Amino acid sequence: MQIPDDARFGAYTLPYGVFSTGGEDPRVGVAVGDHIIDIAPLAAAESLEGGHVFNQPSLNPFMALGRPAWDAVRAWLRELVTSEAHRPLVETHLVPAGAATLHMPFEVADYVDFYSSQAHAENVGRIFRPEAPSLPAAWRHLPIGYHGRSATVVPSGTEIVRPSGLRRVGDAVAHGPSLRLDIEAEVGFVVGTPSEFGRPVNVSDFAEHVFGLVLVNDWSARDIQAFEYVPLGPFLGKSFATSVSPWVVPLAAVEAARVRPPARDPEPAPHLADADDWALDLWLEVEWNGTVVARPPFRYMYWTPAQQLAHLTANGAHVRTGDLYASGTVSGPGKDQRGSFLELSWNGTEPVTLGDGSVRSFLEDGDTVVIRASAPGPDGGVVGLGAVSGTITGAVTGTATV
Amino acid sequence: MQIPDDARFGAYTLPYGVFSTGGEDPRVGVAVGDHIIDIAPLAAAESLEGGHVFNQPSLNPFMALGRPAWDAVRAWLRELVTSEAHRPLVETHLVPAGAATLHMPFEVADYVDFYSSQAHAENVGRIFRPEAPSLPAAWRHLPIGYHGRSATVVPSGTEIVRPSGLRRVGDAVAHGPSLRLDIEAEVGFVVGTPSEFGRPVNVSDFAEHVFGLVLVNDWSARDIQAFEYVPLGPFLGKSFATSVSPWVVPLAAVEAARVRPPARDPEPAPHLADADDWALDLWLEVEWNGTVVARPPFRYMYWTPAQQLAHLTANGAHVRTGDLYASGTVSGPGKDQRGSFLELSWNGTEPVTLGDGSVRSFLEDGDTVVIRASAPGPDGGVVGLGAVSGTITGAVTGTATV
Repeated sequence: MQIPDDARFGAYTLPYGVFSTGGEDPRVGVAVGDHIIDIAPLAAAESLEGGHVFNQPSLNPFMALGRPAWDAVRAWLRELVTSEAHRPLVETHLVPAGAATLHMPFEVADYVDFYSSQAHAENVGRIFRPEAPSLPAAWRHLPIGYHGRSATVVPSGTEIVRPSGLRRVGDAVAHGPSLRLDIEAEVGFVVGTPSEFGRPVNVSDFAEHVFGLVLVNDWSARDIQAFEYVPLGPFLGKSFATSVSPWVVPLAAVEAARVRPPARDPEPAPHLADADDWALDLWLEVEWNGTVVARPPFRYMYWTPAQQLAHLTANGAHVRTGDLYASGTVSGPGKDQRGSFLELSWNGTEPVTLGDGSVRSFLEDGDTVVIRASAPGPDGGVVGLGAVSGTITGAVTGTATV
Repeated sequence: MQIPDDARFGAYTLPYGVFSTGGEDPRVGVAVGDHIIDIAPLAAAESLEGGHVFNQPSLNPFMALGRPAWDAVRAWLRELVTSEAHRPLVETHLVPAGAATLHMPFEVADYVDFYSSQAHAENVGRIFRPEAPSLPAAWRHLPIGYHGRSATVVPSGTEIVRPSGLRRVGDAVAHGPSLRLDIEAEVGFVVGTPSEFGRPVNVSDFAEHVFGLVLVNDWSARDIQAFEYVPLGPFLGKSFATSVSPWVVPLAAVEAARVRPPARDPEPAPHLADADDWALDLWLEVEWNGTVVARPPFRYMYWTPAQQLAHLTANGAHVRTGDLYASGTVSGPGKDQRGSFLELSWNGTEPVTLGDGSVRSFLEDGDTVVIRASAPGPDGGVVGLGAVSGTITGAVTGTATV
């Protein structure tokens, strides 16, 4: 089939999503060029074994089949989109991307968010706890993380309503809409193959369990979070919405992006010892009302997704099909590599100027944020990783009061 | 039907669970006396509208029907078990409790754990942060809480494998099985009727959404938790297992236990203002290897379950059928009213002596903990609230090393 040279999704990425057209039921599709391959009828026409999993409103049944099935389907799709002989067949099952509605691509089981960018953790430490060491005591010993709310993981494009809550204003406590609404640009990992209750997942078994990647915007109300988070961590400051990209990029599509992780000091505990190189050379891009304000690099993340999976199961907790875990805000050492507005505006002391001349520290109603990413592909090419976007709408009721 | 006078579940409590016998599929049952009413065939025989929801391996389909259906089914069951005329019919659908296997009664959507006992929060503050005020700054302003792991909410009787992890030993960091394995005796609330994304649940709508109560043992590895919890809260120290009682007691069954909540200072924010009296006069009982070591009272909890539900949705996060939220450790002001061993042994400085003369601070392999509760019923009676139990087994691999 013909794919424009500048297409975000070429013949190599082949990400999976869930789409519908007109009044039809949502089902699995694969994005390529300006089209979506409607693979449920294509799999039926080709008598693909297990192909009924594509005629479902979520990726979970397909993801539950495991690595051998994922690899076989990817090989089948690669053949279909690259061979001239299959062109007529494929073309009868293409839907123009513009005619489709995209849905949440998978049902989220448990959602965990990590905190694995050293630059981000140090920046946050300097801003919020200037009197303390910039990294928490345990930070270099284990991937710090917490559980988030699965219900409010929403697909790209979902309107983000400004949350209301309690925050400190001087010595008083105020209730009202958040005044410090922020983003966190992250990479998320989606679990396909479950693990067994009571059995930790070995760091070397990462690729057996993880199906693919999404981009994540972990919307954060900094003022609500700052007031509530001691001693049990973020709660309402994070749980109102977490947006994910509609296309899940197979782990196999980022094979060429694998790089050696950064040096660690001290040596990680045995269950966190790197078995393989699972740092990933992804480049994120944060666009605020049309202006690119940051290009965070993923390769410097201190803990890799393989270590994060090993850690979150190290106590015997199991993962299930549909589990999502996110990297934590991706920030690099450069000022233009910071993945949150808290860091970019240094808590409002260094506002950001957008392309239209407007000045921002945190999100205003009507603002739109798009996070994109790309990775090196095979043969010097580039693999696009989709996009996650969201627009802020005003708080439902009430105004800020002290 | 005939129910022993001393039965834990009399003709009034009528709790719901999921059971199976022999090779049959798990389905919904109602506990009464020494029996389980097999209500799926009973509902079919009686042509009860919507009765197919009982022929399911979880309570979620029934819970999703909402308050009017719950009330109608409860009235029907009350009539069945109290009227002599129905006795022959009911007796054909009784299963001896001893012949049944009990399963996880509902599928957990999101799991949230609060921290709403003032005595518990103050005790923990004094033990872990003696230099700081005993309550966190936000504690009297809002119900502090965090998200837990849904996957590892397990039914009573599930073996609890001692988790391994990292902990601080002097200036060093050690990896190995937890040496400070603890319980938290809590009351959990199970959501039936979902709410709408973006719409907070009013504190007065508690009974429209909450189906019933379970007892919760939030197993906690204190050493793992203490090392990991700054700044994002508990993670692996809690996520290895959370046990719940197999019988979900309808909210209607604790109507006579409703009491006025304690006075609050300062006045709660508007979204937390009490609409009705939803403090509950429940008495918990913690049994350690057969010795009752504590009788925590629930009525003094600073925040009620109605306020907790309003708070967790105050930012627009919605609840779903199967959501579980727990009260936090229930501790009263008395020394024998503490709902965790951390408090009972004052972090190991005041060990507890059990009935067999053995001395304990934290859990040893082979230890069994049972949490029970009761509430005042109508006409001066007592309503039993089931039990949640668990036995500790040794860590899977490795021994403690520094």
